[in-house]
Amino acid sequence: MKSIQVGLLGIGTVGGGVFNVLQRNQEEILRRAGRGIEITMVADLDTARAQAVVGSSVQVVADARAVIANPEIDIVVELIGGYGIARQLVMEAIEAGKHVVTANKALLAVHGTEIFAAAHRKGVMVAFEAAVAGGIPIIKSLREGLTANRIEWIAGIINGTTNFILSEMRDKGLDFEVVLKEAQRLGYAEADPTFDIEGVDAAHKAALMSAIAFGIPVQFDKAYVEGITQLAAQDIKYAEKLGYRIKLLGITKKTAKGIELRVHPCLVPVKRLIANVEGAMNAVMVHGDAVGTTMYYGKGAGSEPTASAVIADLVDITRLHTSDPLHRVPHLAFQPDAMSDTPVLAMGDVVTSYYLRLKVADQAGVLAKVTGILAEAGISIDAMLQREADEVGGEGSTQTDLIILTHDCVEAKMNAALAQMQALPTVLAPITRIRKEELA
Amino acid sequence: MKSIQVGLLGIGTVGGGVFNVLQRNQEEILRRAGRGIEITMVADLDTARAQAVVGSSVQVVADARAVIANPEIDIVVELIGGYGIARQLVMEAIEAGKHVVTANKALLAVHGTEIFAAAHRKGVMVAFEAAVAGGIPIIKSLREGLTANRIEWIAGIINGTTNFILSEMRDKGLDFEVVLKEAQRLGYAEADPTFDIEGVDAAHKAALMSAIAFGIPVQFDKAYVEGITQLAAQDIKYAEKLGYRIKLLGITKKTAKGIELRVHPCLVPVKRLIANVEGAMNAVMVHGDAVGTTMYYGKGAGSEPTASAVIADLVDITRLHTSDPLHRVPHLAFQPDAMSDTPVLAMGDVVTSYYLRLKVADQAGVLAKVTGILAEAGISIDAMLQREADEVGGEGSTQTDLIILTHDCVEAKMNAALAQMQALPTVLAPITRIRKEELA
Repeated sequence: MKSIQVGLLGIGTVGGGVFNVLQRNQEEILRRAGRGIEITMVADLDTARAQAVVGSSVQVVADARAVIANPEIDIVVELIGGYGIARQLVMEAIEAGKHVVTANKALLAVHGTEIFAAAHRKGVMVAFEAAVAGGIPIIKSLREGLTANRIEWIAGIINGTTNFILSEMRDKGLDFEVVLKEAQRLGYAEADPTFDIEGVDAAHKAALMSAIAFGIPVQFDKAYVEGITQLAAQDIKYAEKLGYRIKLLGITKKTAKGIELRVHPCLVPVKRLIANVEGAMNAVMVHGDAVGTTMYYGKGAGSEPTASAVIADLVDITRLHTSDPLHRVPHLAFQPDAMSDTPVLAMGDVVTSYYLRLKVADQAGVLAKVTGILAEAGISIDAMLQREADEVGGEGSTQTDLIILTHDCVEAKMNAALAQMQALPTVLAPITRIRKEELA
Repeated sequence: MKSIQVGLLGIGTVGGGVFNVLQRNQEEILRRAGRGIEITMVADLDTARAQAVVGSSVQVVADARAVIANPEIDIVVELIGGYGIARQLVMEAIEAGKHVVTANKALLAVHGTEIFAAAHRKGVMVAFEAAVAGGIPIIKSLREGLTANRIEWIAGIINGTTNFILSEMRDKGLDFEVVLKEAQRLGYAEADPTFDIEGVDAAHKAALMSAIAFGIPVQFDKAYVEGITQLAAQDIKYAEKLGYRIKLLGITKKTAKGIELRVHPCLVPVKRLIANVEGAMNAVMVHGDAVGTTMYYGKGAGSEPTASAVIADLVDITRLHTSDPLHRVPHLAFQPDAMSDTPVLAMGDVVTSYYLRLKVADQAGVLAKVTGILAEAGISIDAMLQREADEVGGEGSTQTDLIILTHDCVEAKMNAALAQMQALPTVLAPITRIRKEELA
């Protein structure tokens, strides 16, 4: 049988990985797929570098549209990134009747609805395993492996850069800014790390998983996004004392009122496996009503782990492209005519529990005032830790840290209580509030 | 579109789960699959109990062959278990042109070659996600999610009963026999626990994963199988002191000489996630050349977790049954005409490292003799722990425990060295030998 012909748009780190792994494991992949899969054309602005990567047997062009226009090409792999030209090219490839594979979470999180609708109209596949958690087959597990389940919640470490930074902060007791510089030096963080450290990258991935889990459109714009830039080393230490570790989690949950979709730092019990996922690794917990809690762990980025996911998509498309579109796995797991309009909740409507750190004056009555405000708001306290003033501020200090873990309450209520506490004259600095998830 | 009609053979714990989950999540599954999936016929010897489970709208018969003979039935689900009648019925269902779903690892591990060959001839699918690690989509991840990779090794906790027993032994410092009784009382171990505690069940699953990972026939008969019945509480304690936990692992590995396929207790560094998988949970680590190390975690047994896997197979078949057989995912991940004859190694040829515990006379020269034997065999020592005689045998004791961790060596060499050490007059009891895997 004739090989499936693949055209790459962009051959940087991931593209190079896809080319190398396809070549190195050619025989193994053919033995599995029953059909050869070959990169026969590459578009990259830097044609000389691209040609050096792929050798002389592959056609290299500067113009991506030449790949899309080539009638021999069965699948177009978009590895350019971003929302601009990538979006245009993906749409053009679909219009040209090409199947598309992409690792571009930003693109799908923002323009997914338009892209998947176009693909559905044209009867082509748009596959994106590489867009979430790198080499971990989490999209496949959600869309196919857990298809019997009502998914109840997902919570994942889906950004390696921030997990590396948090691991280093805890290991070495260092502050965020120091570790970020180290991470940049080691190549774990980019020169402009904004998308990672502000939680945007994780929110792109969470929005995709949310859509697939609950059969709703991709709604990155509705996600609550909070990064790790405000995290202090002392909160990591206090959390540890209380039996928790702080992770940046992407969370999506189905509740009676609607769907939660949020990315923020989070206390997680240290006894949960996910609390022990260290360095740049990723892990995604998925809770389904039949299967219970499952977890998927592996490298979330890097040339070959991402290539592993891209090639898995190429094989899937190779297998499915002769089947009638009605019987294929739907892009967003649910049939396009069976999508739900369950709303994504505003953050104020989310129910979770909290870690609070208050710097307070070390004097009588402070604790009574603070706990009084929480009691009045109906927020109950799970655990408390008061540090001796001397330990916190040195001998003779008149300040102390008050750490409170609460039970579940609705965020709006907590916000109101926080404003009241913050207004107390005995509360001497902005209150730190970090959400907490038991993931039981 | 007409619903896919499913016939169940046997409706015990798992069958009941399949029926209940399919009913409860009917709408969700239809929204995903785009087509209804319905159990319309059930065969069980206890027809009254079966009818009570499924209600009056489903036809219940005592004769499984009536289900197979029913032209309306698209998929037959075999949940009888064992090698006897189950094998016959699966073969008859295949001959009748039915797709088959089974959770029967014993059957596939022993008769897989015959069954898959027949299915291939008839152009039907035999799906078995539920046969390994319950609800965890490990078969799908290996066959599809990691299809770009040369799989290098798999190591898994794939028997919940033994992991529960080992967790309890460690937690409570109890001996095997005591915990086994407790596990039986709680329903974590069966009245006849032989298949679980002797490692046979894990070996069935390891043989299946080995075939899928390396493109070789299912070869349970070539597996090395050692259970946990000989494990002493003190070895768990010593291991802990050295930074390891003891787990029963199913391991399969591709080496230059051949394929390792083995189930035995194993020391695992406590810092690995898999060392922290507790109770009846399952977890499988898979190392691929492109993706690196991944891990899959969840419930390995139970009514609904297993049902989750069975139904995922039903949906897969629903999606693929109109596609031409050439483009389907091959039963054993590799095309039938592309299987490899790489041999499974005898245990003597396996390379691993070891934990040894020797009860020795507390006198000069013993250590020199023992380490001399190892040195002569070319086995190097990684770590050693000698307990004071008083700690081990009470005050005035003349015995002591000598714990040795070795570096990698071939098992045959270790066997010879063990025989020499055992023959020393100063070695006072049978030497305990447990294998060790770093899983790095």
